[in-house]
Amino acid sequence: MPTIVVEVMPKAELLDPAGKAVAGALARLGHSSFTNVRIGKRFELTVNGPVTPEILADAQKIAEEILSNQVIEDVTAVFEAK
Amino acid sequence: MPTIVVEVMPKAELLDPAGKAVAGALARLGHSSFTNVRIGKRFELTVNGPVTPEILADAQKIAEEILSNQVIEDVTAVFEAK
Repeated sequence: MPTIVVEVMPKAELLDPAGKAVAGALARLGHSSFTNVRIGKRFELTVNGPVTPEILADAQKIAEEILSNQVIEDVTAVFEAK
Repeated sequence: MPTIVVEVMPKAELLDPAGKAVAGALARLGHSSFTNVRIGKRFELTVNGPVTPEILADAQKIAEEILSNQVIEDVTAVFEAK
């Protein structure tokens, strides 16, 4: 069945303390190539039928109104998985 | 600066109760085109320099050993963001 992927990331101007903690852990463990980590969410929505432009628009609306908190998060991508 | 994206999803054979709750909410709210929802994580690792095959391999190792819980999650993708 077709799948629509929604990606939600913390807004760039916010700190993302969990990501900072992971970045600190990576540095302590010797993985010095990585200077920053941000942690977001990835939703996979299973669609019962072909993905029409209407369904994709509905998914975009769901992503902005239900799946993300627009105060602290941005919807960075909504697309049909290949 | 280059960014490596790591995607982690709950294993297919696991229930993902949070995803089930969202799927139920979507159905109740009239978004009947979506039959299932799975919720995973998306990490963005900032790299201080060009992404070499060694750094990508290091990121794959980090994804499997630190960023995911291999008992309940799978690393579904590790790639350089364009």
